Amino acid sequence: LVILEGSEMPDPRFFQNAGPFRLGDLARAIDTPVAIAEADRIVQDVAPLDVAGANDLSFLDNRKYATAFAASAAGACIVHPEMVGAAPRGMALLTTTEPYRAYARIAALFYPTPAPEAGISPMATLHPTARVAPTARIEPGAVIGAHARIGERTVIGANTLIGNGVEVGADGVIAANVTIANALIGDRVILHPGVRVGQDGFGFAMGASGHMKVPQLGRVIIEDDVEIGANTTVDRGAGPDTIIGAGTKIDNLVQIAHNVRIGRFCVITAQVGISGSTDIDDFVVIGGQAGITGHLHIGAGARIAAQSGVMRDVPPRQTVAGSPAVGRIEWLRQSAILNRMGQEHAPNGAQQGRSSPAGEQSNERVSSA
Amino acid sequence: LVILEGSEMPDPRFFQNAGPFRLGDLARAIDTPVAIAEADRIVQDVAPLDVAGANDLSFLDNRKYATAFAASAAGACIVHPEMVGAAPRGMALLTTTEPYRAYARIAALFYPTPAPEAGISPMATLHPTARVAPTARIEPGAVIGAHARIGERTVIGANTLIGNGVEVGADGVIAANVTIANALIGDRVILHPGVRVGQDGFGFAMGASGHMKVPQLGRVIIEDDVEIGANTTVDRGAGPDTIIGAGTKIDNLVQIAHNVRIGRFCVITAQVGISGSTDIDDFVVIGGQAGITGHLHIGAGARIAAQSGVMRDVPPRQTVAGSPAVGRIEWLRQSAILNRMGQEHAPNGAQQGRSSPAGEQSNERVSSA
Amino acid sequence: LVILEGSEMPDPRFFQNAGPFRLGDLARAIDTPVAIAEADRIVQDVAPLDVAGANDLSFLDNRKYATAFAASAAGACIVHPEMVGAAPRGMALLTTTEPYRAYARIAALFYPTPAPEAGISPMATLHPTARVAPTARIEPGAVIGAHARIGERTVIGANTLIGNGVEVGADGVIAANVTIANALIGDRVILHPGVRVGQDGFGFAMGASGHMKVPQLGRVIIEDDVEIGANTTVDRGAGPDTIIGAGTKIDNLVQIAHNVRIGRFCVITAQVGISGSTDIDDFVVIGGQAGITGHLHIGAGARIAAQSGVMRDVPPRQTVAGSPAVGRIEWLRQSAILNRMGQEHAPNGAQQGRSSPAGEQSNERVSSA
Repeated sequence: LVILEGSEMPDPRFFQNAGPFRLGDLARAIDTPVAIAEADRIVQDVAPLDVAGANDLSFLDNRKYATAFAASAAGACIVHPEMVGAAPRGMALLTTTEPYRAYARIAALFYPTPAPEAGISPMATLHPTARVAPTARIEPGAVIGAHARIGERTVIGANTLIGNGVEVGADGVIAANVTIANALIGDRVILHPGVRVGQDGFGFAMGASGHMKVPQLGRVIIEDDVEIGANTTVDRGAGPDTIIGAGTKIDNLVQIAHNVRIGRFCVITAQVGISGSTDIDDFVVIGGQAGITGHLHIGAGARIAAQSGVMRDVPPRQTVAGSPAVGRIEWLRQSAILNRMGQEHAPNGAQQGRSSPAGEQSNERVSSA
Repeated sequence: LVILEGSEMPDPRFFQNAGPFRLGDLARAIDTPVAIAEADRIVQDVAPLDVAGANDLSFLDNRKYATAFAASAAGACIVHPEMVGAAPRGMALLTTTEPYRAYARIAALFYPTPAPEAGISPMATLHPTARVAPTARIEPGAVIGAHARIGERTVIGANTLIGNGVEVGADGVIAANVTIANALIGDRVILHPGVRVGQDGFGFAMGASGHMKVPQLGRVIIEDDVEIGANTTVDRGAGPDTIIGAGTKIDNLVQIAHNVRIGRFCVITAQVGISGSTDIDDFVVIGGQAGITGHLHIGAGARIAAQSGVMRDVPPRQTVAGSPAVGRIEWLRQSAILNRMGQEHAPNGAQQGRSSPAGEQSNERVSSA
Repeated sequence: LVILEGSEMPDPRFFQNAGPFRLGDLARAIDTPVAIAEADRIVQDVAPLDVAGANDLSFLDNRKYATAFAASAAGACIVHPEMVGAAPRGMALLTTTEPYRAYARIAALFYPTPAPEAGISPMATLHPTARVAPTARIEPGAVIGAHARIGERTVIGANTLIGNGVEVGADGVIAANVTIANALIGDRVILHPGVRVGQDGFGFAMGASGHMKVPQLGRVIIEDDVEIGANTTVDRGAGPDTIIGAGTKIDNLVQIAHNVRIGRFCVITAQVGISGSTDIDDFVVIGGQAGITGHLHIGAGARIAAQSGVMRDVPPRQTVAGSPAVGRIEWLRQSAILNRMGQEHAPNGAQQGRSSPAGEQSNERVSSA
């Protein structure tokens, strides 16, 4: 029944290619010149360097792949101007200082997100006071609460709950099986399946006779252009709001506790946990499985390595690692000392060395990859 | 469409204020006296010290906020008797040795959980043999299996599955998109969105020809007054049951494996993992992202710091930290030594010091905050 | 309403006993001989050594339980030939070199997974182009997208979304509240509640003016006999596919990023995170909460201890531990040194020692237990 074979090109069952495009038109889309002789070349698809053929456009973003670049059969390629000399003969080049960004733009031309088909499924349940924009799409099993509002062209996925009073802006994609309560959500927000927004924060007044629940009276505010990964949880505030700033991207299975404020354009990788009332400024990058305790301040542009345990404030632009987290240089030194001591005490001298430092992430390309 | 602005008071779109109250009535609710001259003062709302005004009641629980207390414009405040002298002029005081607990009680008077509107949605699916109390509420898309029972005033949220034979007691809140199977659940239990209860434990007989699934023949027992956070998973037992004791509070994204027994009044913070057959006594507190391996015994009142890796039994009332976890004092000493060695080897002498110890939590106030 | 009491035998509300069986028939099912005099003995149930009675069959897999074995009242027991001498009088023995595997097989005879009742719920939503096998079962609230295919005898649980073009093979169990998109799924696959398969990988081209989403153009391929735990997330590839090999078992709350390739017969415990483009060969075992950074290669049969942070390639059959992860022997030595130094600096000499090494798992029995 099911054929499980790999494919080198995007599977047309899932991805519709909007091409082909003239190379000149693609160059214009990324504001870069192209040789006139190449402008009419036809590009059928995008593809990685190693599988691209004469009709494909590829990209080189990382010098590690210079060899693959030199050997590539790609008809055209997006590259940094410094790499032009390494190109194979006959390859048309689009040069830019940000090749990965340019690739992202062109890939989105080939595979645009299809506009949602507007309409409300007869299997959805809308409260009579809910207001749904005429261009929005409400899928089967979705439940829209009293006084909730759904903006233009926004999709509410199957079996998703939009609670009473919740507002979702325009051009959003709220996937299937999501739950949102006590929240205001901006435009162009993407919530992947299983995201939980706005449930009670974890607040109790402890006591020997039992822990008393403390009413959680804040909201969740999600600003424009935020994306949140599958099964991530964002609790509402206890009094202040929980806030996620514009343009911030959050991966899967992340925990955001009550009263956390996250600035703009942060990148938070999978399985990170951020404890209550912690305040994170703009452009902070947090590696996978890191934890940050409560009531801390993380300065703008700070970088927190994977699996770190951050227990005190981090100054702007500092990189920390380890648990408890220290400055990255300090952490490298401690790891090296521990490693050397282990080897000095080894019965047969040095064994396998300690791993090289992690948490490295390029400045231009952040992904789970 | 969406207005994303902060508000200092609970947003009336989400939270209905049941006030105002006479201060004398609030004092009586927490069993504390109030000066007769103040008893008729009208309290409109609860609010943090820094934003409270003349008609608001605030609280001081942590001496760190003594300055905010002295400067607060709150009309009334709940404080420890020792802090009375630091109060600003004109502030009415309710004194108690447990200010946070008293605040929790009064905040719940102002913002009570609304009683659910009883009834079964026409979009829900009930097996003919399911028994649902007449005062219960079954929301759209919920599915109630054969022989399942739902108690008085309990809410079953939208698109939640209650499996065959499952029993849920009275006054429970089972939120949206929850899945429960093979489980018996007590009274006043709160399961937040996306909780998974009673699926197969992770048990396989490994072998070179494949891993053979071992039937998981136990249940999940959740006792009264338990609260479980969003997207947390609780597997059913392999033979014995998985048990969560009365009054225990569990945060988001926690993993409870098969055969785990958790005592009463434990507090388990987000992203903790507890491996199979581990046995945890009453009043244990576990910090975020900690892991406990299988078949261990954690004594009553033990405290496990965030990100700990517990690999052997923990005696009652002991605090452990680190991975592998050791006694907290030991862990602090090891951290200090490593830090000192790192600084001795630093090219320019001491750099930024190791973080101060974490895992501290006040005895009275436990939250994700 | 709810009776919360333990039971020593599987609760008949949840588990239907298909017995009794003749001991001779059970012996034949596991290809082992039984004394003729014992072949007609009737076995009513399976049970652990300490609670089994004269009509129950138990098993001894771990020498630690030899005392319980010697004292057991079980009428019959599966044991390794070497343990026969320790059996109590009158106990019938089934001998095999793999007692736990034999137990798994017999337990599945007593408690077989009931065949699903075929049919499509009137509360499900099927696209007209979806193809559902006549023996499949589609539960209420399930949504099956355009051109999706569901194989023979496969169950699609309540409120689960099967996206456009997705194929699910035969004899699968896709539980409730699952979301699948852009994926091809083999036969006999079990996805527990809340699993998320095929959403966008976490890929952005970062920049000071905002992070640009990179189209994720790959799929998820899940081969035959895979089992995936509750609330685990598997992102689809960015260009290459994300692949989970045949017979691999994955626990709850695990994160599998885009382009990850996992081989056959791996075992991945709860809360593990695997970053993008990492390549894992067959028979790898990964302990709970471990993290693996991106673009690594983990060799066949490698073992990664719980909470490890793996930052470089792991050779075949190596065991690693720690963060950053090193060979297990090296990690033990480092832990011992740190422990000794801590004790030397203690004011009163040695205190509690460092925990004994973790991450141990028997070769035959892997579970969350």
